[in-house]
Amino acid sequence: MFNNLSCDKLKEECGVMGVYRNTMDDVAQMVYYGLFALQHRGQESAGIATNDGNMPYFHKGMGLVNEVFNDEIFRSLKGNIGIGHVRYSTTGESYINNAQPLVVKYRRGSIGLAHNGNLVNAPLIRSGLEDDGVVFQTTIDSEVIVNLIARYSSDGIPTAIERTMDLIKGAYSLVIMTEGELIGVRDPHGLRPLCIGKLEDGYVIASESCGLDSVGAELIRDVEPGEIVIINQEGIRSIKLNKEYKKASCIFEYIYFARPDSVIDGVGVYQARKNAGEILAKEHPVEVDMVIAVPDTSIPAAIGYSEALGIPFSEGFIKNRYIGRTFIQPDQSMRELAVRLKLNPLRSNIIGKRVVMIDDSIVRGTTSKQIVNTLKRAGAKEVHVRISSPPVAYSCYYGIDTPDNKQLIGAVKTIEEIRQAIGADSLGYISPEGLKRSVGIANDPYCTACFCGDYPLEIPLR
Amino acid sequence: MFNNLSCDKLKEECGVMGVYRNTMDDVAQMVYYGLFALQHRGQESAGIATNDGNMPYFHKGMGLVNEVFNDEIFRSLKGNIGIGHVRYSTTGESYINNAQPLVVKYRRGSIGLAHNGNLVNAPLIRSGLEDDGVVFQTTIDSEVIVNLIARYSSDGIPTAIERTMDLIKGAYSLVIMTEGELIGVRDPHGLRPLCIGKLEDGYVIASESCGLDSVGAELIRDVEPGEIVIINQEGIRSIKLNKEYKKASCIFEYIYFARPDSVIDGVGVYQARKNAGEILAKEHPVEVDMVIAVPDTSIPAAIGYSEALGIPFSEGFIKNRYIGRTFIQPDQSMRELAVRLKLNPLRSNIIGKRVVMIDDSIVRGTTSKQIVNTLKRAGAKEVHVRISSPPVAYSCYYGIDTPDNKQLIGAVKTIEEIRQAIGADSLGYISPEGLKRSVGIANDPYCTACFCGDYPLEIPLR
Amino acid sequence: MFNNLSCDKLKEECGVMGVYRNTMDDVAQMVYYGLFALQHRGQESAGIATNDGNMPYFHKGMGLVNEVFNDEIFRSLKGNIGIGHVRYSTTGESYINNAQPLVVKYRRGSIGLAHNGNLVNAPLIRSGLEDDGVVFQTTIDSEVIVNLIARYSSDGIPTAIERTMDLIKGAYSLVIMTEGELIGVRDPHGLRPLCIGKLEDGYVIASESCGLDSVGAELIRDVEPGEIVIINQEGIRSIKLNKEYKKASCIFEYIYFARPDSVIDGVGVYQARKNAGEILAKEHPVEVDMVIAVPDTSIPAAIGYSEALGIPFSEGFIKNRYIGRTFIQPDQSMRELAVRLKLNPLRSNIIGKRVVMIDDSIVRGTTSKQIVNTLKRAGAKEVHVRISSPPVAYSCYYGIDTPDNKQLIGAVKTIEEIRQAIGADSLGYISPEGLKRSVGIANDPYCTACFCGDYPLEIPLR
Amino acid sequence: MFNNLSCDKLKEECGVMGVYRNTMDDVAQMVYYGLFALQHRGQESAGIATNDGNMPYFHKGMGLVNEVFNDEIFRSLKGNIGIGHVRYSTTGESYINNAQPLVVKYRRGSIGLAHNGNLVNAPLIRSGLEDDGVVFQTTIDSEVIVNLIARYSSDGIPTAIERTMDLIKGAYSLVIMTEGELIGVRDPHGLRPLCIGKLEDGYVIASESCGLDSVGAELIRDVEPGEIVIINQEGIRSIKLNKEYKKASCIFEYIYFARPDSVIDGVGVYQARKNAGEILAKEHPVEVDMVIAVPDTSIPAAIGYSEALGIPFSEGFIKNRYIGRTFIQPDQSMRELAVRLKLNPLRSNIIGKRVVMIDDSIVRGTTSKQIVNTLKRAGAKEVHVRISSPPVAYSCYYGIDTPDNKQLIGAVKTIEEIRQAIGADSLGYISPEGLKRSVGIANDPYCTACFCGDYPLEIPLR
Repeated sequence: MFNNLSCDKLKEECGVMGVYRNTMDDVAQMVYYGLFALQHRGQESAGIATNDGNMPYFHKGMGLVNEVFNDEIFRSLKGNIGIGHVRYSTTGESYINNAQPLVVKYRRGSIGLAHNGNLVNAPLIRSGLEDDGVVFQTTIDSEVIVNLIARYSSDGIPTAIERTMDLIKGAYSLVIMTEGELIGVRDPHGLRPLCIGKLEDGYVIASESCGLDSVGAELIRDVEPGEIVIINQEGIRSIKLNKEYKKASCIFEYIYFARPDSVIDGVGVYQARKNAGEILAKEHPVEVDMVIAVPDTSIPAAIGYSEALGIPFSEGFIKNRYIGRTFIQPDQSMRELAVRLKLNPLRSNIIGKRVVMIDDSIVRGTTSKQIVNTLKRAGAKEVHVRISSPPVAYSCYYGIDTPDNKQLIGAVKTIEEIRQAIGADSLGYISPEGLKRSVGIANDPYCTACFCGDYPLEIPLR
Repeated sequence: MFNNLSCDKLKEECGVMGVYRNTMDDVAQMVYYGLFALQHRGQESAGIATNDGNMPYFHKGMGLVNEVFNDEIFRSLKGNIGIGHVRYSTTGESYINNAQPLVVKYRRGSIGLAHNGNLVNAPLIRSGLEDDGVVFQTTIDSEVIVNLIARYSSDGIPTAIERTMDLIKGAYSLVIMTEGELIGVRDPHGLRPLCIGKLEDGYVIASESCGLDSVGAELIRDVEPGEIVIINQEGIRSIKLNKEYKKASCIFEYIYFARPDSVIDGVGVYQARKNAGEILAKEHPVEVDMVIAVPDTSIPAAIGYSEALGIPFSEGFIKNRYIGRTFIQPDQSMRELAVRLKLNPLRSNIIGKRVVMIDDSIVRGTTSKQIVNTLKRAGAKEVHVRISSPPVAYSCYYGIDTPDNKQLIGAVKTIEEIRQAIGADSLGYISPEGLKRSVGIANDPYCTACFCGDYPLEIPLR
Repeated sequence: MFNNLSCDKLKEECGVMGVYRNTMDDVAQMVYYGLFALQHRGQESAGIATNDGNMPYFHKGMGLVNEVFNDEIFRSLKGNIGIGHVRYSTTGESYINNAQPLVVKYRRGSIGLAHNGNLVNAPLIRSGLEDDGVVFQTTIDSEVIVNLIARYSSDGIPTAIERTMDLIKGAYSLVIMTEGELIGVRDPHGLRPLCIGKLEDGYVIASESCGLDSVGAELIRDVEPGEIVIINQEGIRSIKLNKEYKKASCIFEYIYFARPDSVIDGVGVYQARKNAGEILAKEHPVEVDMVIAVPDTSIPAAIGYSEALGIPFSEGFIKNRYIGRTFIQPDQSMRELAVRLKLNPLRSNIIGKRVVMIDDSIVRGTTSKQIVNTLKRAGAKEVHVRISSPPVAYSCYYGIDTPDNKQLIGAVKTIEEIRQAIGADSLGYISPEGLKRSVGIANDPYCTACFCGDYPLEIPLR
Repeated sequence: MFNNLSCDKLKEECGVMGVYRNTMDDVAQMVYYGLFALQHRGQESAGIATNDGNMPYFHKGMGLVNEVFNDEIFRSLKGNIGIGHVRYSTTGESYINNAQPLVVKYRRGSIGLAHNGNLVNAPLIRSGLEDDGVVFQTTIDSEVIVNLIARYSSDGIPTAIERTMDLIKGAYSLVIMTEGELIGVRDPHGLRPLCIGKLEDGYVIASESCGLDSVGAELIRDVEPGEIVIINQEGIRSIKLNKEYKKASCIFEYIYFARPDSVIDGVGVYQARKNAGEILAKEHPVEVDMVIAVPDTSIPAAIGYSEALGIPFSEGFIKNRYIGRTFIQPDQSMRELAVRLKLNPLRSNIIGKRVVMIDDSIVRGTTSKQIVNTLKRAGAKEVHVRISSPPVAYSCYYGIDTPDNKQLIGAVKTIEEIRQAIGADSLGYISPEGLKRSVGIANDPYCTACFCGDYPLEIPLR
């Protein structure tokens, strides 16, 4: 129950970072700061691999970036090319063996690879490779991809990547490192984000632009769907797949996953969230005394909602940020304190007030119920809930950890039923159209499958 | 430089917590959650001591509450009375030997004691005790206090505490534990906060009311200046010193130290901060596009400022919360990224805008300069700075870690010089009177010595 | 210099252990005790893999067996089949990625494999596999072997192992685990030891018989050179290669590597060492007051030497066994104490005496010099040195970490020069024939390449 | 049961070390090596305190010396005077708070103190001090002693120590450090050992001479019973108490506690043990094929026994030295393997043989039974047991951890009953007179209270 507080959210599975410096200066520290800025995308394991032109070096470990690395490890990570990875994962696969980047030796040298996303046909390809004698040491897609690249490497790695992309289906943003190149790859639908930054002496590729900021790189542009970006001593060049695919970037990046200071595919995440709040206000206005947010993600939407209706925005909760992995869970007798340990309501602010609480999403609904209850016990006269995304009703197969459909409250209950379940005085979700408008685009280049079930590419057979 | 980000603040030195349950149930877990809620008052060491009526148990360690304790330790901390302590400290004394609570055996049993504050005459008393043959194993004031209490214990601990209070001068909020009692003590000026909460089966004493919330206790009232509160099987009783002292609670608790969801001496911290923002707006209005806060403390003041002038409030920075103790500091070549690693400006929000940035205080001014510079590099057209406290110009001797007077920019520079030093387009501090009004009191029961030099009791000789 | 004390020895690179229980009871604890008994064969990393008939489980870590595993890990290692590995390694490859067992998924299920030895043609096969598209994630031979087995697996694993053995050359004792079988393999020359034990409810395969003792298994016999032993629900069966190879077991197992309570290929290690001492006494008698040993390996030889000449055996040194991995090395000013910290001479025993010191081998000679010097400074009148192996003059390519030929004092100096170098009053090595007699065999089934250069199979090209 | 293997021994409670260098060079590393050599005297906690003439520095921790200290800690331990302590302790007091040395500030400066032994009147003095207002933070005698010294310090520390020695009764060997002096103190009966060594640039005081060897110091002499040795810039001087006491050094140091390379009160430990073996052979000869020892302590006695009767000495067990604190204990089904995991019999050596096994002592008898049983299962035809100390029948109150009288098999059973209990074919203990002769002294300057009950000074009231 206590864990739900953080668990009752969709979870991004990874963040990737790559740095190339043509001055031959070491890059490990830059990769580290990049991963640190991308830490919100995965807190389970972290890894950095570098290459000094002769051989690869790497270190991976369980935990946060600042727990996995130290000065001594840094000194061992030599080289002007580096890639890094932070990972969140479902429990079953939560061990060091599956940490990334994956570094392998193949016939022409070494490849390092870090992957954000999820292939939908990995089992099929895996099985085909196994039939051909390949053995697998991990359960991660990166091992499938790197095997394909190695097999197709006779005409060089870029060509090998092209041929690999013909085979693999699903969501993938990759950073790849060889002895002399840093390569960024984004799947043809552009499901997961990936962007390019310029350093004085090189380039950076990162899942989000906040990773570029962390090393002082300037955002040039996003890697385009289906694009392979190759960076080496001669500069930067690009290969685009021939076939055209419909772009379908994950819209949830704007709602919850990405850091608000990131800009993805030209759209600022903060602004998109604030827009969503404004649209939500128009779609589901309410007469209350105060607008509050469930911190931290929902603050921009709450500000937007507040401004649109001219109702004051206020902080409603204080979030305790010191809960670590070893936090001792409350025993039975103290269970109902659980939410308040992490999210204490600002009682004096709330007492006697009618409040509207903005949240980014409802997944199972368990936490929402606790939070609404907490507000009521703190004296709120009315608690209205507004959600800056439509009901999540379909599982994601493209790199996001979603519970089974049956556990998605949006899949099994009507909105009125959800309202009752969470104990809110009223409940309103932004409409799918409203959400799309919040990211500023009339047409449809975003993946909204988790709301609408309109999967942009096939989903895995069960 | 990087460290300045967190160091360039005044620092509370401690938080204390005590729990008494007359059902004889164990209290260690409650003390733990209390300390967890008070973690912002000290992150260097943590300790819990309990007593089961026969003997004391304790455990102390360096680090955060969640790092110091585990289930096995909990099982060893038996008893229905418990006290706890979190500590921040200057480097020189930063070792486990000085962690609290201090637990001693004296002629009539055992005493556990945890102290928040600073005695101004500790060296003198220490020296007197040494002349009488006492040896000291630590450099903390608690050891002085506990020695006095033991010496005066012939007529019982409460009387011993009274006699001790006749001798010691300075700031002290104490929680004390014997075989059968939990005792709370607040110095005659009430310099540091201390409040009392009611459990179904007992009482809680804590530095701030957020500590009560964390265990489901209801705030009854604050311990009064010069009051000794004794809790045991028979209930709660109180001893008040005969002599009258002028109340002088630390006003900086409202400005920066306390958690916004706490209520101190009847005044809600969040509301006080928001009030300060409104008053600041009246004292130093400015025509800009946007009000932003330096997160997290200044957000309520920024909201108050925004509402008073009708200028939109917006988030201006994203704070990276994953920096741990082992974070690898940027080397020389990356120094100017230092601020941005922790506090990245929301560029898209700021670019081309005139902003007013609300901060709670300026100590040395180094961080303020970096932050203003960061905003300008992010494209802000104008950066105005408003501070919700008056210039800090005098060192504190009552439990707050302040730099030397010479390092206090408010002591050595005029406001115009400070403005130039930090590169702001304009700078305004709230007035001392405005600040007092923000906590809702016309007269003067607060210590404002750090602004005005009007020390409520003598300061130590040098 | 200090490190030489332990480094100036030839080092076994690994120990392996496998357990099969037909009662389906868990085996992880048995593998653990086996590895614990084999710990002397490798202290750098340890790993255990198990299989419960459906899927493999594994855990590996750096350090001693008792440091790598705990109860929680044990609970996760389910299954009635298990293999384990302890590893010593040269620095270059000393990281977790190369720890064993290696566990892979291949087309028909999973394979776990642990390897003791060294292939001489691994680079060649590796290169061939790479040409065929295989990627390698480690630098260990196990990965080469497991790839071959997976490729040849169409007719079952035993046949695949046979075909693999046709290709690989060098020293290898393997324990292999599938969903339903435990398999032991010893290379055609039998270079590294491997033996079979019987449990009440299953079988054990281990590098040395002391591993069997540790789980209460009874030694049945050694795995024969070129034999594949397959253990499953139906019992134990054996496949022998058609081709005949000359047996060439490593004779150094008897001299130094193996535990004295082990029996290898029918010969007790303790007895062999004692025999060597007796033969050494006949070949190089000396008139002294006392026989001492360099502890611990040389004690049986010293007892044998003592009995053969009727000269009293005495302890000559006290070995400090508390030196751990974090031991702080003496600085320059205390360097000459280095030996004595680990090996303090029993001065009162030695002073004024003529002693003969028995050691098992001299590799670089640096430690021998220090030890002789230490004895002289402790007052020994004469120090004679007798070595229970011939001069080590050739590098080993079959799984033993030997320095470059140039660093082998036996390769570059005459015996008289060595005597002078180490400062002994006389020096005698056992003859190769004497050594062979000590293990009780007239003919020549042992590998003595490190003494004589008669490599039983080709050595790698440089 | 498994733990008994190491627990069924009397346990020394501490070792102490002190170093003074008049060159003002740092001593911390020397104290470290001394403690490392004394590690057998206590493995639970370790601590070092130094003084640079101005102030003390110290660090203490749980675990072995090499686990507690690292380079960074060393750099913080400045000064030319240092003391150290290793501690073994009964569980109840096993925590960091009781680790030594104890460092206190008193009216004239600082005192560091490390204590080996046990005061019999500590509770009485503690109570008197408490009546006088003293509070105690630990349960160790050192805190009592240091309080007395501080109280009596008006005429200087040496005089204070004299006056303290008038009060305290029991066993104590102390090393004491002030701003300018290193002081060694041995109780009037000389119950625990303490010796003095000479460095080129200073002096060393240590529990055993092996501590001197470890830093290259030359043994000058033992601190005499009732002597205070003061070392400072002017050299070394001595104060002797006026009163004469009967010397009563602990004879168990020779039997079991001390390292065999130490010389205590002029008697080499190794030689004493060997003598005991010879005397035991005369008192309890036996006709067998082989003499074996329970490693490691009993080896010298076994060699003496072997030589006296002309029966060959042989190793009988291989001791596994890799058992660490985290070793996973065998579960019920594997219990009977427990002994063999630590002490595996050399079966090939033993099978069909009549052996006599020499051990240093029998405390509870549980381990002896297991070991005899192990030998029989390994095929020994007869197992005779000879013990190089008389039956332990009385608890020690002078610093040795002894079980309750009722658990001492020598207190509750006849020798024939013990023989039956442990399953030996015959059993013989050395006589008290024989033991005394083994340390070479006709008269009676040794404490043999644990055998004879003749306590040299009063024992504590219960």
